[in-house]
Amino acid sequence: MNIPKTIAAMLALTFLLACSPSDNGNQTGVATDPLPSWNNGDAKQSILDFVARVTDPASPDFVAEAERIATFDNDGTLWAEQPLYFQFLFTIDRVKELAPEHPEWKTQQPFKAVLDGDQEALAAAGVPGLLELAMATHAGMTTEEFERIVSEWLDTARHPTTGRPFTEMVYQPMLELLDYLRANGFKTFIVSGGGIEFMRPWTESVYGIPPEQVVGSSIKTVFEVRDGEPVLVRLPEMNFIDDKEGKPVGINSHIGRRPIAAFGNSDGDFQMLEWTTAGDGARLGVLVHHTDGDREWAYDRESHIGRLARGLDEADARGWIVVSMKDDWRRIFPWN
Amino acid sequence: MNIPKTIAAMLALTFLLACSPSDNGNQTGVATDPLPSWNNGDAKQSILDFVARVTDPASPDFVAEAERIATFDNDGTLWAEQPLYFQFLFTIDRVKELAPEHPEWKTQQPFKAVLDGDQEALAAAGVPGLLELAMATHAGMTTEEFERIVSEWLDTARHPTTGRPFTEMVYQPMLELLDYLRANGFKTFIVSGGGIEFMRPWTESVYGIPPEQVVGSSIKTVFEVRDGEPVLVRLPEMNFIDDKEGKPVGINSHIGRRPIAAFGNSDGDFQMLEWTTAGDGARLGVLVHHTDGDREWAYDRESHIGRLARGLDEADARGWIVVSMKDDWRRIFPWN
Repeated sequence: MNIPKTIAAMLALTFLLACSPSDNGNQTGVATDPLPSWNNGDAKQSILDFVARVTDPASPDFVAEAERIATFDNDGTLWAEQPLYFQFLFTIDRVKELAPEHPEWKTQQPFKAVLDGDQEALAAAGVPGLLELAMATHAGMTTEEFERIVSEWLDTARHPTTGRPFTEMVYQPMLELLDYLRANGFKTFIVSGGGIEFMRPWTESVYGIPPEQVVGSSIKTVFEVRDGEPVLVRLPEMNFIDDKEGKPVGINSHIGRRPIAAFGNSDGDFQMLEWTTAGDGARLGVLVHHTDGDREWAYDRESHIGRLARGLDEADARGWIVVSMKDDWRRIFPWN
Repeated sequence: MNIPKTIAAMLALTFLLACSPSDNGNQTGVATDPLPSWNNGDAKQSILDFVARVTDPASPDFVAEAERIATFDNDGTLWAEQPLYFQFLFTIDRVKELAPEHPEWKTQQPFKAVLDGDQEALAAAGVPGLLELAMATHAGMTTEEFERIVSEWLDTARHPTTGRPFTEMVYQPMLELLDYLRANGFKTFIVSGGGIEFMRPWTESVYGIPPEQVVGSSIKTVFEVRDGEPVLVRLPEMNFIDDKEGKPVGINSHIGRRPIAAFGNSDGDFQMLEWTTAGDGARLGVLVHHTDGDREWAYDRESHIGRLARGLDEADARGWIVVSMKDDWRRIFPWN
C-alpha cells in the first residue's frame, strides 16, 4: 500500500468536502458565521455545539424538528429592562394621559406619586400599588383597543436615556440567535413575566415571533356582544403571573411540551431553565449576565430589576451557560 | 378583426392554462380533488371558494399566510361524541380502575353510580357530580403521568358500539380539510371544551396538530421540585372552561389573533364562530350537522350531547355553512 498516496487522497477528499457548497452557508468555501455579533468564546461555542448535536440525524442527541422548542424571557433577555421595565414606563405614561379623566388621582395614591414623579411614595406603594396602576391602565377596554394603545405608545415613546424607540432597545446577538435557531428547525417562543397582550402587537415584526408563540402574564378577559358586535373586554383582575414557578406552568399551558433550550437573565427565569434542562437528552440553559456598564447596564445580585443571584450561584453545577454581555457580545444594540 | 380566430386563440389559451401542470395538482391535466370524501355540493364549493379567495394574491380578499388561522372544535367536529363524550368514557374507566384504592367509593356518590352502572343516579349527580368525577381521575398526578395514563387508555380502550379505537372515530372529510387548509398556508388549531391535556398526547399523530396548537379546558397545575426533580402537579381545581363564551377567550389567550375560519358542530361553538366571522374581510364559519343516523348518529336540537339549536336558527342570517353529514360526506370514518 502506498501510504503517501492514500494520505494525499484523504487530504484531497477532506478539501473537497470542506469546499462542498452543501456543507457551507455560501459558495466561497468559508462558512458564514450565523452569530456575527457574538465574540468567539465558550458561550458562543456551546450554543453552536448544542445546535449541531440536536440537528445532526447521526448524533445520539438528535431531536426531531417538532420537539425543537426554544423559550426566551423578554425583559433583560431580548430587550433591555433599565432604568425600569418598559411596560412600567408605559404604565406611567398611561396614568399621565388618563389623569384629566380622573381628577381624584391628584390626591389618591399611588396615582399621585406617578403624577408628582415622587419615586419614594411610589416605592412605598409596593406591589399592591403597582398592581393598582396596572389595572387602571391595562383594563376596562377591549383587547383590540388595548392593542392599538400599545402600538401607538411604541410608535411615539422614547427610551429615557438613549432616546431610542423601545423596539430598538433589543439585543442584536439575540436577534441573530433567534434567526439561527429557526434556520435550524427550532420553534421560538417568548415566555415572559410581562403582559402577554403588551408584547403580542410587536413581537412578530421585531423578533419574528408570532402572537401565538408569546406566553406572558395576563388579566382576565370576558366575551361580550355590544350592539351586535362581539368583543373581548379586559377586566381589572389578574389571571396568571408568568414568572418564577409560573413559567413552567405557562409553558405547559401554552406549548404543552418541555422546551429543549431556554434563555433568561434573572432569577425569575430560574424555574424555566430548571424545568427545561431537567428533561432527557441534550438540553441548553443560558443566562444573559448584564456585565457591561458602558454599552448597556451592569447589575445582578443587588438589583431590584432583573435580580440574578441564585442563577449565578448554581449555573455551573447545573451546566447552564452564563453569557457575559461585556465579553461575549461584540455588539449589543442593532444601532451600536 | 377576425373574430372566429380570436375566439379560437382564446380557447386554445384557456385549454393550455387548464392543462398547465402548475395550475393542477398532478401532471395529467385533471386537478386532484383535495376533498375526495366530500360530495360535490354547496358546502364543499363554499369551502373551496373561500380558500381560493384568501390565498390568491390578486384577490381583494387575500389574507397573508401568518393571518390564516383556522380553529376546530374537537368533539363532534373532528371526532365523534356519541354515545357519550369520549373523555367521559375515559373518566368512567378511570373510576373503575382506581376503585380498589378507594373502598369508600362503593357507597359514595357519584362514584357508586359509576361502579354500579346506574345511569339515573349519575344523571342526578349533575354537573357538580361530573366535576367531582373529573377531579378524582384527572388530578393528583404530574402532567407526564397523566399523559401516560391517557396514551395507555387510547391504546387499549374501544368505542362501545363500533369496537374501534377512539382515535379511529375521526371524520375522514375533516382530516382531508385539515390537510387541505395546511397545504394552503393555514395554521390549524383545536379549540375544544375537552381537556387540553387529554387531547395533546395524540392530536399530532391523528390530526397533524401539534400540542402548542391545542386549546382546551384545563385544571390548575403547580410547579414543584420533588427529590431534586422539577415536576408539574395537576390540582383538583378548574382553571379554565373552554366552551361557549370561553372559546373566544381561549383563542385570544392562546393564539392572540382572530381566526379567519372556524369549524364547530354545537351551540358550544356559537361564540367561536360569531367571534371569527365578525372580523373584517373574508371569513368562514362552518357547522357540522349530525344528520346521518345510519353511518354515524343523528341529533341536534334535543340532544344532551352536542346540542345544536341556535346555530341552526341563525346560520343562514350569519352566512355560516351547515354541513349535512348525510348529504355532504361521501365517507364518514376512515374505515368506512
